[in-house]
Amino acid sequence: MMTVTNDRVAMKHGAGGRAMRRLIEQVFMRNADPVAAAMDDGAVIPMPGGGSIVITTDSHVIQPIVFAGGDIGRLAVAGTVNDLAMMGATEPLGLTCGIVIEEGFPIEQLTALHESMVAACREAGTAIVAGDTKVMRRGEIDGVVINTSGVGITWRPVRDNGAVAGDAIIVTGTIGDHGMAVMAARNQFEFAEPLTSDVAPLNGLIRGALGAGEVHAMKDPTRGGVASALHEIADKARVGIVIHESALPVKPSVRAAADLLGIDPLFIANEGKAVLVVRPQSVDAVLDALRAHPYGRDAAVIGECVTDSPGSVLVDTGFGRRRLSEPEGELLPRIC
Amino acid sequence: MMTVTNDRVAMKHGAGGRAMRRLIEQVFMRNADPVAAAMDDGAVIPMPGGGSIVITTDSHVIQPIVFAGGDIGRLAVAGTVNDLAMMGATEPLGLTCGIVIEEGFPIEQLTALHESMVAACREAGTAIVAGDTKVMRRGEIDGVVINTSGVGITWRPVRDNGAVAGDAIIVTGTIGDHGMAVMAARNQFEFAEPLTSDVAPLNGLIRGALGAGEVHAMKDPTRGGVASALHEIADKARVGIVIHESALPVKPSVRAAADLLGIDPLFIANEGKAVLVVRPQSVDAVLDALRAHPYGRDAAVIGECVTDSPGSVLVDTGFGRRRLSEPEGELLPRIC
Repeated sequence: MMTVTNDRVAMKHGAGGRAMRRLIEQVFMRNADPVAAAMDDGAVIPMPGGGSIVITTDSHVIQPIVFAGGDIGRLAVAGTVNDLAMMGATEPLGLTCGIVIEEGFPIEQLTALHESMVAACREAGTAIVAGDTKVMRRGEIDGVVINTSGVGITWRPVRDNGAVAGDAIIVTGTIGDHGMAVMAARNQFEFAEPLTSDVAPLNGLIRGALGAGEVHAMKDPTRGGVASALHEIADKARVGIVIHESALPVKPSVRAAADLLGIDPLFIANEGKAVLVVRPQSVDAVLDALRAHPYGRDAAVIGECVTDSPGSVLVDTGFGRRRLSEPEGELLPRIC
Repeated sequence: MMTVTNDRVAMKHGAGGRAMRRLIEQVFMRNADPVAAAMDDGAVIPMPGGGSIVITTDSHVIQPIVFAGGDIGRLAVAGTVNDLAMMGATEPLGLTCGIVIEEGFPIEQLTALHESMVAACREAGTAIVAGDTKVMRRGEIDGVVINTSGVGITWRPVRDNGAVAGDAIIVTGTIGDHGMAVMAARNQFEFAEPLTSDVAPLNGLIRGALGAGEVHAMKDPTRGGVASALHEIADKARVGIVIHESALPVKPSVRAAADLLGIDPLFIANEGKAVLVVRPQSVDAVLDALRAHPYGRDAAVIGECVTDSPGSVLVDTGFGRRRLSEPEGELLPRIC
């Protein structure tokens, strides 16, 4: 008998949170089959000659495909470059691009998306080395879906399970920018200050940080936001994490919109930020390296790993501590 | 000004033929930009320490997702294993699986697809090492789309442009099986003999062939069939190709269905066959190696490369020669 509780795929199963993790465990990792075991979005394969090959994959279904600060093309490149960087491969060997297009999609728009991919590749110092194009009939797919896979090499792989009590938690900049920009585009919110996605390839930023000090774990806080990233880090390393709410870098416009909508910025998706778990002795050097890069100017220590409450994330509000829930899914479908 | 003649994507642009090649050239390879240049489905990256990393990608949109002889899961694994094998990487390091699912898709069916992927991986001696899951709302995507990317290493890359006049053209078995099986499933044809897809991972078969003799070029005849593969080989190496119609291995059931529908089996998609361009001195050894493998029992020499008519493919019917046209697109959308 199967143990799956729902018999049909629901939106939450693709939302990067707890429901998705359950689906993956129950469908893709049943029987602890070694051939099927690794349905994480990246893998590290040690090479006989030294070094490891890092492989990642990500499908991008964002809607709308163009938004303030970027488009699905930039997102697809940045997402995969960042997945590689999070595992320590900051110089990608190359990306692949598998694009599925709805019949009738304007070729001019396709060209613009492709130019955006090329520009993001250039920024990341990589290239699309292989591609595949499929077309589905009108109504069989909504617009365009882009899969990007990436291959890199690292001599010092970083895992997401290396956190140790005492380590500092650093976020590389303001949180919630991407999700809020997409929400605004989707709902045509108007704010005095524009809400702009942070989507960016972070490999240059991360290369600097890894060169400056000892990073025990990294995670890009995409679907499910920083909350989801912290839960994964706490869970995989069996440490507790305490976050100081007042230390969280949040843009005033994002704060205002989040307050208005009653959403905690910790739960909002980012596409140009990383959460770093750093050895205490390395914190200053890593922060300096991050802040020297345009994408890391607002980097901040937001908390620390503790021995108490292993697997849990606590938020210190200044008045006390509350337990941060793990997102069940993403607030919005098709955020990335 | 753009030079694209149609301003919207049409079905033929995803069909693996001439229209798709034009779209790729005009959208993805404009300006001969080196970062954007390689939109072929596979890439070879030479490594400093010797050997090359081979990377491929393929999105699978086949409909129906289950058909006689296989399903979209087996197809996704075999397709990518075969792309790697065609470039000489017959021992894949690992595959990635990016799956996009329609809300409401039965989880039981997802489990069956995944089991089929695992079985195909096992057969190919590889594993899915990384995965990504996205869900789109009901009506935003038709069922399920699976992207598989693959990474392998080769010390002797095979290209598709290495054909030389005098080389023999070998096909590893009967042609047209996959496309005809899908056509039958789609249109609910009933024939006395069942039409069954040949979908299979060919890396073991190809490993044997490469070990037995000198292979100058290889291509898997998927969308657009053997005709499309031969055109690409002739075009890239600027040789002529002559095919002997009577030498083509075609199953009687496929022949009967093709005759009934008025389709040339040379244009029908295969998912478990390869076209090999082999040095004349190696032909016997390569044929022996192929025929010793279950997937190569019907391997046959079907023609040769010539100096005449470079870039063209001619079919010798026994009564004379006719020029084989290059497929503009696939006969059916969503054949793979």
